[in-house]
Amino acid sequence: MGIFNVELKKVIDDSYEIEIGFGLEDKLISDLQNGLVGDITKFAVITDSIVKALYADSILSKLIEAGYSADLFVFEAGEKQKTRKTKEIIEDEMLEKGYRRDCCIIAVGGGVVTDLAGFVAGTFGRGVPFINYATTLLAAADASVGGKTAVDTPLATNLIGLFNQPEKVYLDIAAWKTLPRRQIYSGMAETIKHACIASRDFFDYLNIHMNEILQIDKEKCEYIAKENCKIKYEVVMKDERESGLREILNLGHTVGRAIETVSEYRLLHGEALSIGMVAEVKLSYKLGYMSKNERDEVIEVLKKANLPTVIPEYINREELVKKLYTDKKVKNGVLRFVIQKGIGEIVEFSDGVFATPISEDVVREIIMDM
Amino acid sequence: MGIFNVELKKVIDDSYEIEIGFGLEDKLISDLQNGLVGDITKFAVITDSIVKALYADSILSKLIEAGYSADLFVFEAGEKQKTRKTKEIIEDEMLEKGYRRDCCIIAVGGGVVTDLAGFVAGTFGRGVPFINYATTLLAAADASVGGKTAVDTPLATNLIGLFNQPEKVYLDIAAWKTLPRRQIYSGMAETIKHACIASRDFFDYLNIHMNEILQIDKEKCEYIAKENCKIKYEVVMKDERESGLREILNLGHTVGRAIETVSEYRLLHGEALSIGMVAEVKLSYKLGYMSKNERDEVIEVLKKANLPTVIPEYINREELVKKLYTDKKVKNGVLRFVIQKGIGEIVEFSDGVFATPISEDVVREIIMDM
Repeated sequence: MGIFNVELKKVIDDSYEIEIGFGLEDKLISDLQNGLVGDITKFAVITDSIVKALYADSILSKLIEAGYSADLFVFEAGEKQKTRKTKEIIEDEMLEKGYRRDCCIIAVGGGVVTDLAGFVAGTFGRGVPFINYATTLLAAADASVGGKTAVDTPLATNLIGLFNQPEKVYLDIAAWKTLPRRQIYSGMAETIKHACIASRDFFDYLNIHMNEILQIDKEKCEYIAKENCKIKYEVVMKDERESGLREILNLGHTVGRAIETVSEYRLLHGEALSIGMVAEVKLSYKLGYMSKNERDEVIEVLKKANLPTVIPEYINREELVKKLYTDKKVKNGVLRFVIQKGIGEIVEFSDGVFATPISEDVVREIIMDM
Repeated sequence: MGIFNVELKKVIDDSYEIEIGFGLEDKLISDLQNGLVGDITKFAVITDSIVKALYADSILSKLIEAGYSADLFVFEAGEKQKTRKTKEIIEDEMLEKGYRRDCCIIAVGGGVVTDLAGFVAGTFGRGVPFINYATTLLAAADASVGGKTAVDTPLATNLIGLFNQPEKVYLDIAAWKTLPRRQIYSGMAETIKHACIASRDFFDYLNIHMNEILQIDKEKCEYIAKENCKIKYEVVMKDERESGLREILNLGHTVGRAIETVSEYRLLHGEALSIGMVAEVKLSYKLGYMSKNERDEVIEVLKKANLPTVIPEYINREELVKKLYTDKKVKNGVLRFVIQKGIGEIVEFSDGVFATPISEDVVREIIMDM
């Protein structure tokens, strides 16, 4: 009998840059030439069927023009494709084309692409570097900071994945102009959520400038991209493993994720989140953490962004309540919620605890009434 | 245009204990009661169809007896099952049984189980803690130190996975007695490899005591378990990401892995490795890095362990040569080998470089002659 001690204490530096601008393809190439990923010369560009023609084809050409070896790996657009199956298909294609550990993955697209490609990068050859070239508002708000990558399963969204930090993130705001209007509205949901969590001022800014933002006004959009990064970073920075504080980013997601799944992805992530946020401001109001006015202000801003604020008819309410239990915050079979405190703050229930147990009946009542 | 800097520098402590002994099930339970994984009370015991009745059932009972919530997740024994599909099935079963992020995985079995379960743990809810209860010699030699977890794909072994450190490893030597003889021989291959890499003395010890070891002599087996940990640890410790030095652990694996795949897993990992080591001592001899005597000594020790030392008739040699290119050490389409220097040392080609390009013709000649 004996003990052998494996000592594995080390310093890790996962720092990276987020570059915000208009049309950053050439900047990406020059960064690579300047050693962004060392001496790697082989790039797997992962994208979806929509972004392919808009950006990925052009990035691929520029990579090849610059003398790199590169291939495109395309999957059908949509959250429905963010599965283990799609991951497997991309992996097999990469292996077939001779990709091994000496490559770098470039994700070009929105949150679905960056979530999936970051996860592929995390397990391909036990980890290869990756770069996010984000083309949507949602990716700017959600996928640029935090290192969360994942796929969905039939039973729950984002439950299979890992924390994996990119080498660099590009937020190409010019790309937002190519988005369908519905995607722009959807992307605003995470932005509004960030304001609700952390900044009354930012909330007011969104309230005042919503129309210009939805028209992709350059200055306004650059501002909100930066604010999104800043707010998310401040939270994530303090809690990279999502143990306590980071759960506040989950505001609206308890009900939102469940609706997204039950709708079988007929609702976009941001649309589902919007409905989830409405449920959660109603909960907050019910618990006495926000005024009637504040509750209505949040609902109004969501409406200004053309987001849905009621649960669609086709959603089975009981199925929705049941689905809440697949939430990652569930502990010992009890639902837990993050609760907004007025606008721009989150309730801290005790030291470092931002999610609180809520009985199913309370939640059901709110859901039945929406 | 603007840059936002994400600073993510941090200290990580992944240290853990390896406990070596006879019959460690009760020790596992008492460690859990003493807070090995904090306040987690929900355990997913992952095992294969052979180890289930031998150990996993008993560990499950003891967990439940101790008041924990626990379930068994069993897959069919064999390297053939170390796939993304098996991982997916286990994940779905865990989700269905209500497992979320507040659980711990206990892998009970050999290298296939620990590789697979460690990978499941790494991506379930973006990472839950796991414990390895290793029941085979191979797991003791290979899976206890290094944090490598993975599954196989149709195109290559171990190319999809991640580095993930367990909370603790138990090496239950009593369990070796329940192994089929063929498994014991197979497990010796990694042990012999470790001796070839790092210690002439250990090699001589194996040579002298091979019979007692194969009879699972308590003292001798405890000694080799510890030596295995020590040698592997010293290498891995210095190079956790397998960038340079760690590649020496790949000795014999370039050809070995390829044979394993081409044999469609009719050969056990250790058997394939044994043949791979023979190919590589022949290569080393050919390149002038070891004497004829040393080459033959290695082959003799492998034979003493009842391991195969020639390529089976049914293996298509050309297919085997082609399969070599799926090796992780391949760089820019060129094969790279780790080369043994005498017995107990590895050639360092330049500072920190332990794998060298070898032309396909040289390798083909050796393979055709086996």
